Amino acid sequence: MLPRGRPRAMGVAVLLLLLLLVIGFFLFGRDPEYGLGTTATLDGDLYGSRNLSASSPQLLLPPKCEMLHVAVVCAGYNSSREIVTLMKSVLFYRKNPLHLHLITDAIARNILETLFRTWMVPAVVVSFYDAEELKPLVSWIPNKHYSGLYGLMKLVLPSILPLSLARVIVLDTDVTFSSDIVELWAFFGHFSGVILLWLDRLQQTGWEQVWKLTAKRELLTQTATSLADQDIFNAVIKEHPELVHPLPCVWNVQLSDHTLAERCYLEAADLKVIHWNSPKKLQVKNKHAEFFRSLHLTFLGYDGKLLRREPFGCPNHFPPGAEQLQQALAQLDEEEPCFEFRQQQLTVHRVHITFLSYQPPPPQPHDVTLVAQLSMDRLQMLEALCRHWPGPMSLALYLTDAEAQQFLHFVDMSPVLSVRKDVAYHVVYRDGPLYPVNQLRNVALAQALTPYVFLSDIDFLPAYSLYDYLRASIEQLELGGRRKAALVVPAFETLHYRFSFPKSKAELLTLLDAGSLHTFRYHEWPQGHASTDYSRWREAQAPYRVQWSAHYEPYVVVPRDCPRYDPRFVGFGWNKVAHIIELDAQEYEFLVLPEAFSIHLPHAPSLDISRFRSSPTYRDCLQALKEEFHQDLSRRYGSAALKYLTALQLSRSRA
Amino acid sequence: MLPRGRPRAMGVAVLLLLLLLVIGFFLFGRDPEYGLGTTATLDGDLYGSRNLSASSPQLLLPPKCEMLHVAVVCAGYNSSREIVTLMKSVLFYRKNPLHLHLITDAIARNILETLFRTWMVPAVVVSFYDAEELKPLVSWIPNKHYSGLYGLMKLVLPSILPLSLARVIVLDTDVTFSSDIVELWAFFGHFSGVILLWLDRLQQTGWEQVWKLTAKRELLTQTATSLADQDIFNAVIKEHPELVHPLPCVWNVQLSDHTLAERCYLEAADLKVIHWNSPKKLQVKNKHAEFFRSLHLTFLGYDGKLLRREPFGCPNHFPPGAEQLQQALAQLDEEEPCFEFRQQQLTVHRVHITFLSYQPPPPQPHDVTLVAQLSMDRLQMLEALCRHWPGPMSLALYLTDAEAQQFLHFVDMSPVLSVRKDVAYHVVYRDGPLYPVNQLRNVALAQALTPYVFLSDIDFLPAYSLYDYLRASIEQLELGGRRKAALVVPAFETLHYRFSFPKSKAELLTLLDAGSLHTFRYHEWPQGHASTDYSRWREAQAPYRVQWSAHYEPYVVVPRDCPRYDPRFVGFGWNKVAHIIELDAQEYEFLVLPEAFSIHLPHAPSLDISRFRSSPTYRDCLQALKEEFHQDLSRRYGSAALKYLTALQLSRSRA
Repeated sequence: MLPRGRPRAMGVAVLLLLLLLVIGFFLFGRDPEYGLGTTATLDGDLYGSRNLSASSPQLLLPPKCEMLHVAVVCAGYNSSREIVTLMKSVLFYRKNPLHLHLITDAIARNILETLFRTWMVPAVVVSFYDAEELKPLVSWIPNKHYSGLYGLMKLVLPSILPLSLARVIVLDTDVTFSSDIVELWAFFGHFSGVILLWLDRLQQTGWEQVWKLTAKRELLTQTATSLADQDIFNAVIKEHPELVHPLPCVWNVQLSDHTLAERCYLEAADLKVIHWNSPKKLQVKNKHAEFFRSLHLTFLGYDGKLLRREPFGCPNHFPPGAEQLQQALAQLDEEEPCFEFRQQQLTVHRVHITFLSYQPPPPQPHDVTLVAQLSMDRLQMLEALCRHWPGPMSLALYLTDAEAQQFLHFVDMSPVLSVRKDVAYHVVYRDGPLYPVNQLRNVALAQALTPYVFLSDIDFLPAYSLYDYLRASIEQLELGGRRKAALVVPAFETLHYRFSFPKSKAELLTLLDAGSLHTFRYHEWPQGHASTDYSRWREAQAPYRVQWSAHYEPYVVVPRDCPRYDPRFVGFGWNKVAHIIELDAQEYEFLVLPEAFSIHLPHAPSLDISRFRSSPTYRDCLQALKEEFHQDLSRRYGSAALKYLTALQLSRSRA
Repeated sequence: MLPRGRPRAMGVAVLLLLLLLVIGFFLFGRDPEYGLGTTATLDGDLYGSRNLSASSPQLLLPPKCEMLHVAVVCAGYNSSREIVTLMKSVLFYRKNPLHLHLITDAIARNILETLFRTWMVPAVVVSFYDAEELKPLVSWIPNKHYSGLYGLMKLVLPSILPLSLARVIVLDTDVTFSSDIVELWAFFGHFSGVILLWLDRLQQTGWEQVWKLTAKRELLTQTATSLADQDIFNAVIKEHPELVHPLPCVWNVQLSDHTLAERCYLEAADLKVIHWNSPKKLQVKNKHAEFFRSLHLTFLGYDGKLLRREPFGCPNHFPPGAEQLQQALAQLDEEEPCFEFRQQQLTVHRVHITFLSYQPPPPQPHDVTLVAQLSMDRLQMLEALCRHWPGPMSLALYLTDAEAQQFLHFVDMSPVLSVRKDVAYHVVYRDGPLYPVNQLRNVALAQALTPYVFLSDIDFLPAYSLYDYLRASIEQLELGGRRKAALVVPAFETLHYRFSFPKSKAELLTLLDAGSLHTFRYHEWPQGHASTDYSRWREAQAPYRVQWSAHYEPYVVVPRDCPRYDPRFVGFGWNKVAHIIELDAQEYEFLVLPEAFSIHLPHAPSLDISRFRSSPTYRDCLQALKEEFHQDLSRRYGSAALKYLTALQLSRSRA
């Protein structure tokens, strides 16, 4: 999705970019180490005159491996998505190591910490600063929106960034680079000779005094009811024009001021930075808007994992864990039949938690979050799921960068989904041929915020009453205390794709007797749910305890601090079975709930299950994974784990 | 998929790039108009010394809007895919107009003509040259592979390219640019002073004599059983070292010679061209290979439609139809509720016909091609379809660029699909929110090469005997003559996703009576197939004629020159209905075949049908499309078309 609805903020932000470039230098610039070239250099027509016409004179680039510092103020869900596209465009062209200084609210910090940790881009350092600390410094300025506060924070960045920081480029989240940011950085050198003079003046007055005085004067003399950051910058510039050295227009191509921009870029060979105001409106009307849009879409849909590439010839800057990961991958044998499985298990997927706006559920002692995972081909399940489950959900989506944008559009267009703010969508970016089902489950599980979780699958629709019933059951069973229990929600399936969902257990039993419903996978894999004991469930009036048996894989409600899923199981097979074994090994009791049920809807077989059925290698690899899992189990639980191995061997000898 | 299995050809081809750059200049270079800069420029440390270390001295770039000429020899299916990635990387960075000179065999020409026509990239001119014409010039040279001939053609390019062409850059299909090709073009200027001297010498001997003599001498003196193009280039260089001016190593980063390459690029700030030898092997082993791979994958998965952008400030070079299209799009009203439909109808999708290797069926007078379309979520149908239909197929796939690569991998991995060479897969690249079902059908239909086509849908499996039975029926019914007929294949459906396919009509009838099968859409839309008259079909021993009725949408076998589908119908609804009306209006008789059947398998509802069901606007837009269709029909068929309108109105008044 293109940014929209912020015309005013956008109209000003590239100016910000250039202003803060200069101001940043004033305030932090203490060591200008590369200056202007000779006059001859500036006047020389070296790269063809067209290159100089609208762009800058030739600049000295900093030393090859110099760290460039970039600061961005980022708050909330939408800006946390925007900054990703900005960063992709910066990373695509950059050749230097980068240090990002991110001034964030709690929401953005939570998202971006996970994102950058899992993105694992070499030669990128990320530091976080709490935007809350800056609020008191700017909250005295009247402004129209809550979000305006974050804009104003650019005025006071010096007070939060480390003193040791000499120079920093300050960017808004809604710009797209089409060139190497080092060329922008080089302007520090370009201005140095000039700015050093002014630095003396500034040292006497101080930036803080300058902008505060100006802002206060503005508030007095004008009938201002609010001041945005750019209003203050403009006023300062008006009073102190000597502070500003405008960047060449190619560093500030705005779509809002079309004539002005066009005059710039028609002459230029290179656009350096595109700034987004309202491209959506221009979508089909204007061929140049189309050009800008294509650049934006390039990075919107760009596969971010391709940016995990190291700049050449500089000392290594490995992100945490990256070196070990590279070594582990290097040790894999590509000729081994299960290579794909090994590689997929080791893959660290980029994760963008809470991709859309989200309202966490208020803390309640017996609340339950539905946890599931899906890919693009199951999107159409979401509306039905929302109708069946009125409570909080935490869903992991396995998507490409381009699909994430389609997903955004899909939710925007859906009247059912767009109003639900208690559903957290976590995007896990695709990488590799096998569906990393348990890694996805773990992402969704880790982001569930209620004390209990219902571990479900996306093709199941819960009984309409299930959410209320589960909360009541948790309370009645007093699970809050020391009792370790997994509440079993019996699973059914319909083979018909037209289907009227039962309103009650009685209705369900009628459909079961009529053959319109079956217990889940009754025909191909009854052992998966045998322990649930469906005939006992028919009559049950109270929860009853059942024992684990081989291949048991019920859908359960457990405390959110339950064991994680074993990420070695990728693709089809054994992913839930192993988790249930883990619960049993940790002595969770399995309690079947007499009024709970959920129903699996039919769908075409997944590619993974098709591969499992058609490929002996696939089945052999799964078998190898099972054996390794059992070895680990024995290591951790000793002789107590023997029963699982025995059960596995028994079932294999039967097969 | 990364290129592989051509280590030898790859190890040499970047040299080719540099050689032909120089040689091309010899032969065509008559107007060197921009020379070297001053010595001062070359020695000056202007852009930072790192930029000069491994890269070229600063070059004069040609005038902003100068047309750059690029020649590529391209033959067969695989090279036709490779050249797309090459071109994406060139187009991403280029700012000049380009003229592509493509020397192709019939296969590549067929593919690339369609591709570039539908790609509609502004400021790109494409000329085709028949590689057959060059064959006699090089076929006297013994070489190991048929494909080697195409390599040798680079020696004789001058004899096929127009005399007016002064300079040309010759590229292999397996390189990826990471910089603007204009920088390579600028070397023509750089060498001009030096090369002009040699030009005199060359004028005396002539290139043709030079290489032929050398080649013949090689064949005599060495025990050569074959000569590849690079062998000859090497021999020429050995004898005439003065002909060669090597390009800086950044223009020739090869993965095959790792140490040598690394010495180059570790010093360089910029890599200009990456050349692919065996990256697959290096996938996880080497961090630099990872860098190169990421650049390659960037363009492999890059959405080619984003390259439909015009270079700024040069005279317009619109591809055919592009201007009218832009005007039509500009006239659309974005606020109109059916805007999405209008836009989708006008969209020109890039089309890559015969994306994979394909063996056209031998001409047979009664042969039938199965025609269908699909997107990624139906890939798993392909294997079953291949088992049910042993004849030729023409399938349109609606994919993103990245999905096209997944599809390639999927076919490679499938033992069933990879052996079938009579299935033509045509990739239509995704663009827009609505599934362009009829545009897809028309692409598949246009590429069917047999005299008859079976117009089916991807979710249907034909009776095992259908292919043979259809051919026999066509022969018996003597359809070859003037008889205009559409043979109806009765359609059934199963609601069960586990299902044993009937081996005969008798078995099918048993399943129908048992309620395991139904006539297609019997429950929701019986009028779609009512005219087929299933009760008559039960008893029929011979083909019988049926009359059109409202909403009739049978699956039919027709001559391949049948009317096309109406592309205005996008998304869900009426796409087949309109086509059947068209057949009826053109007086095709509908003949139901007594032994033919095909069965629809269940699947989750598509996103389009979900939107149709949930959105009143969607239904209104479909209604508007129907009305426009009827108006067009009246215009074309006059009063004969009245019955369709009456039927529509009647059915609406009933609803």
